[in-house]
Amino acid sequence: MRSVGIIDLGSNTARLVVLLYRPDYRYQLLYELREVVRLSEGMGPSRILRAEPFERGLEALRTFRSYCDAVGIDDLRATTTSAVRAAVNGEAFVEAAQQRAGVDLEVLTGRQEAASGALAVANSLDVRDAVVFDLGGGSMQLSLLRARRFEQGGALPLGAVRTTEAFLGSDPPRGRELKALRRHVREQLAPRLAELPAGLPVVGMGGTLRNLANIVQSRTGYRPDLLHGYRLRRDALEDLVADLAERPLQRRREVKGLNRDRADIIVAGGIVIAETLAELGVDEVSISGQGLREGLFYPFLFPRGDHLAPDVREFSALNLMREYYDNPAHNLHVRSLALQLFDQLASLHGLGPWESSLLAVAAVVHDIGMAVDYYAHHKHGMYLVMGRAMPGFSHREQVLIALLVRYHRRGSPGNQGYGAVLEDGDLDRLARLAGMLRLAEYLERSKAQRVHGVRCRLGDGYLQVEALADGDAEIEVREAGARSDLLASSLGVSVEVVAGYGGA
Amino acid sequence: MRSVGIIDLGSNTARLVVLLYRPDYRYQLLYELREVVRLSEGMGPSRILRAEPFERGLEALRTFRSYCDAVGIDDLRATTTSAVRAAVNGEAFVEAAQQRAGVDLEVLTGRQEAASGALAVANSLDVRDAVVFDLGGGSMQLSLLRARRFEQGGALPLGAVRTTEAFLGSDPPRGRELKALRRHVREQLAPRLAELPAGLPVVGMGGTLRNLANIVQSRTGYRPDLLHGYRLRRDALEDLVADLAERPLQRRREVKGLNRDRADIIVAGGIVIAETLAELGVDEVSISGQGLREGLFYPFLFPRGDHLAPDVREFSALNLMREYYDNPAHNLHVRSLALQLFDQLASLHGLGPWESSLLAVAAVVHDIGMAVDYYAHHKHGMYLVMGRAMPGFSHREQVLIALLVRYHRRGSPGNQGYGAVLEDGDLDRLARLAGMLRLAEYLERSKAQRVHGVRCRLGDGYLQVEALADGDAEIEVREAGARSDLLASSLGVSVEVVAGYGGA
Repeated sequence: MRSVGIIDLGSNTARLVVLLYRPDYRYQLLYELREVVRLSEGMGPSRILRAEPFERGLEALRTFRSYCDAVGIDDLRATTTSAVRAAVNGEAFVEAAQQRAGVDLEVLTGRQEAASGALAVANSLDVRDAVVFDLGGGSMQLSLLRARRFEQGGALPLGAVRTTEAFLGSDPPRGRELKALRRHVREQLAPRLAELPAGLPVVGMGGTLRNLANIVQSRTGYRPDLLHGYRLRRDALEDLVADLAERPLQRRREVKGLNRDRADIIVAGGIVIAETLAELGVDEVSISGQGLREGLFYPFLFPRGDHLAPDVREFSALNLMREYYDNPAHNLHVRSLALQLFDQLASLHGLGPWESSLLAVAAVVHDIGMAVDYYAHHKHGMYLVMGRAMPGFSHREQVLIALLVRYHRRGSPGNQGYGAVLEDGDLDRLARLAGMLRLAEYLERSKAQRVHGVRCRLGDGYLQVEALADGDAEIEVREAGARSDLLASSLGVSVEVVAGYGGA
Repeated sequence: MRSVGIIDLGSNTARLVVLLYRPDYRYQLLYELREVVRLSEGMGPSRILRAEPFERGLEALRTFRSYCDAVGIDDLRATTTSAVRAAVNGEAFVEAAQQRAGVDLEVLTGRQEAASGALAVANSLDVRDAVVFDLGGGSMQLSLLRARRFEQGGALPLGAVRTTEAFLGSDPPRGRELKALRRHVREQLAPRLAELPAGLPVVGMGGTLRNLANIVQSRTGYRPDLLHGYRLRRDALEDLVADLAERPLQRRREVKGLNRDRADIIVAGGIVIAETLAELGVDEVSISGQGLREGLFYPFLFPRGDHLAPDVREFSALNLMREYYDNPAHNLHVRSLALQLFDQLASLHGLGPWESSLLAVAAVVHDIGMAVDYYAHHKHGMYLVMGRAMPGFSHREQVLIALLVRYHRRGSPGNQGYGAVLEDGDLDRLARLAGMLRLAEYLERSKAQRVHGVRCRLGDGYLQVEALADGDAEIEVREAGARSDLLASSLGVSVEVVAGYGGA
C-alpha cells in the first residue's frame, strides 16, 4: 500500500487529504485537515492577494507539510486554483509556499480544475454524460462529460466568496442585490450554455453545495446519512436560499446543519447554484461528494491511460470487500452460485439485470461485517455498507445492498428504517434476492467451494435445487435445505436441496 | 500475522474457530463453524460411543479439515473432551479421526480442560481470584483461579446432555425428576466445595449458560448487546429455568432467544448451573464468552511462560487500536496529553484512578472509527467499540469508553441509549473526561506531536492551559481554545489556551 497527500488550496478553504491505496486495487481516505483561509478575501478588482489572507494560506500549508512529515507519506501533490491563478502576486505566493512552507504548489488552469472534477464524477457516479459544476470560493467550473470523458469546460468568476464581496454588501442582502447577482450569473453563463447540449443530468460539487444539501437533508429528516449521490431538488434549494437570505448573518449562523464559517457566503453561493440549475433547465442536481481532490488522486489509483475505473460499480464493491474482509475465493463463489440460482429461476422471480447486479454486489461484500466481529456480522455488515457512500450506486441501491447483507444469514427482511428511499416492490425484490443469496451462502457453508454449481428443477409449486459437487458436500446440502424457507416463501414454492454430482 | 485453527469436539457441539494473530501484539476471530454432534448421545452407563454419534463427530471433523485446507492455516490444534475421554472406544474414535478425517485429536484430561477455561478467564475478565465453571454436554469443569493462575480443578459428570439423559426422561420433566437432579448436583459438588474458599466471585462459561443469559437479556431488553462480562442473577436464572421446565419440548422451542438445538438439554443444564450457584453461595455469575477454545489459543498469542497477558485492559485497548486504525504516535500522544490534563486538574474534577484509566483507554482507541470513514468517525468509533466485548472491562466501563470516543470531537455528551448500565454521576464523569480528551485531541490537531505537554494554571473560576511546544503550534492553540467549551462547562470554569515553550 502507498499513501499520498493531496493539498487543495482553494479561495475559501484549504484542505489536505491523505489517502492509502494500491494501484488498480483499492483505496481509503485516511485523514483530512481543513482550514478556512479565505485566500481571495479583499482581492476585489485589484487582483492582489492581501497580506492577511496571504499569511493564512502559508500557515495552512505549513501545518499540512508538518502533518505529512509526521505521518510519512510516499507522494504529495499540492495545487491551488482561482485566487492564486487570478492574482498579480500569485507567483510570489507560490515562491513563498516553496520557501516558507516547503510545499511545491501547482497552479491549475480553469480547464485543468474542471477536468479533475469531471474525472472524480466519472469515477464515482453512475453517469456517462452529464453537465458538471464545481462551485468554489473564487470560481465555478462548468464542464461537459461525454462517455465518461471530460469534453470541454473551464472556470467562470462565480465563486461564493467573490460574488458575496461583489454583490451582497448589505446584511441581510437586499432584494435588488440578490437580483443583480442573479442577472450576473445569467450573463456569465450565457455564452457557455450555448455550447452545452440540453437534457443532460447535472452533477454538482463543492463545499457550498454540500452544505446546502446537508441543511435540506437535516430539515427533511433524510435517511440514509449519505451525501454523495443525493439528489437535491431545485425547489427545495430555492426555498432554503430564500430563508437564508432573509436572515441577518448572526441569525443565519444558528441554522441547523450550516457550517458557521460559511454563513456569510452561503447566500451568494446558493443563488449561483439555483440560477445555474434554472439556466440549465433541470429540476434537480446530483451531489458529488468527490471533487477536485479526488480528481487529483485518481491518476495515482488508476495510473494508466485516462485514469478511469473500467467499471465503477464493480470497483466499488471490490474496494469495500478488500478493505474489510478479503476472502475472495468464498465471496466470489457465493456470487457465482447466487447468480446461477438467479438465472435458472428467472421465470419464477421475474427480476431482471438490475436486480441481478445488486445480488452480485451483495454477494461480494456479504461478509465484511466480520471485520467488526464474527458474531452478528450480518448486522455489522449492514452498518459498514451504509457507513459511507458507495461510488456508482444510488442511495436506493446502496440500501438494497445493505439489506441483502443484513439478511444473508437469517431474519425476515424488513426496511430497517430506510423505507423513504425504497420504491414499490422493493421489499419483495429484497426477499427474493435475499432468499437466493442465503441459499448460495449455505451452499458455501464450509467456505471450501465444495459445491461447484447448482441445477434447478421446477414443477408445479415445487423447486428442487441440486447441489453439484465432486465429493462430499453433505453439510452444505443439509444446511442449505434448512435455510431455504425465505426463498420458498418469497417465490411461493416449496424448496428441496439435494446432492448432485459434477458441475466443476 | 499467523492464523490458527482450534477444534473443540465437545459432547454436544463441535466447533472450529480460526483466529488471526501476531504473538504478543493482536488477534482477531476470523471464523467459526459449529455443528451439533451430540457425541455422547445414548452412551449412558455403557460408556460406548454409539455408531450414529460416532459418524456425526467424524463428519464434523472432515468438514473442519476441509475448511482449514481451503483457507490455508498455519497451525491446527484439535481437542476433544468428556465423551471421548470417558468412552471405552475413545481410542478407536481418535484413530478414525486421524485416518478418516485427517485430524490429530488430542484427548484433554478434565484438569487440562479446566485449566484452559481458567486461562481464558484470566486473559479476558478483570478478575484475579474466582471460582470458574464450564458446563459442557458431558461434564462440568470446576476450578479455582488464584492471582490469575489455575490453582486446582477438574471435571464432574454434570454435563447437560448427560444429566438430561440420566434424569429428565419425561416431557415436560416431572417435579421429582427435577428434584432428583438437584440432589445429584449437590452430591457431586459436595467434596469439591470443601476445597474452595468462600466469598469468591463466580465466572461461568459454556453454550448452555450463554444461551440462558441470552434469553434473560432478551426478556429484560438489556442493552448493550454484549454477553461476555454480563452478570446473570441467580433469581432471574431460577425464574427462567422454572418457566422452561414447565413447557413441553415443542413449546420450549418457541422461546425467544433459545437455540432450538439446545431445547431438550437446556432445562437440565439450567438446573445444574442454578444449583451450583446456590451451593457456592452467590447471587450472580459473570458470563465469560471466552472458554476452552480461547484457552487453547492463548499459548499461540502469548507464547512465553504462563501465557497470561501482562495487563488485560491495556492489551484489550491496544488490540482494538491495532485492528482498526494504527497511528500509535498520535493515539499515545493524545493519551499523554489527556492524562497530563487529568493529573493537573485533579482538584477541579475530583475524579480518581478509575476514571483516569478509562480516559487513557478512550484516548488509545478514539480514532478507530476512521476504519469505516473519516467523516463522522466519532460515531463509527462508538459503534466499533460496542461491536464486541472488550476483554477486561465491565459493560459500564465499555459504554463509558464508547461514549468518550463518541464525544471526543464534538457534541454534548448524552447516554446514547445506554443509560441502563450507567450509574449515578456517570454523565458528569463523561462530560469532564470528554472535555479533557477533546482538548488533548485538538492540541494534537496536526497529528504531528507539535505540542509536547501542557501546564495548567488555576485561579478563581479561570483555567489557563499553556500548550508547550518547541516551535510553531498556532493551529493547535487556536483549535484547542475553540473546542474548550465542554471542559469549561463541565468543570464550571472559563478556559483559555495559550502558547508556551518547551515541554519536550
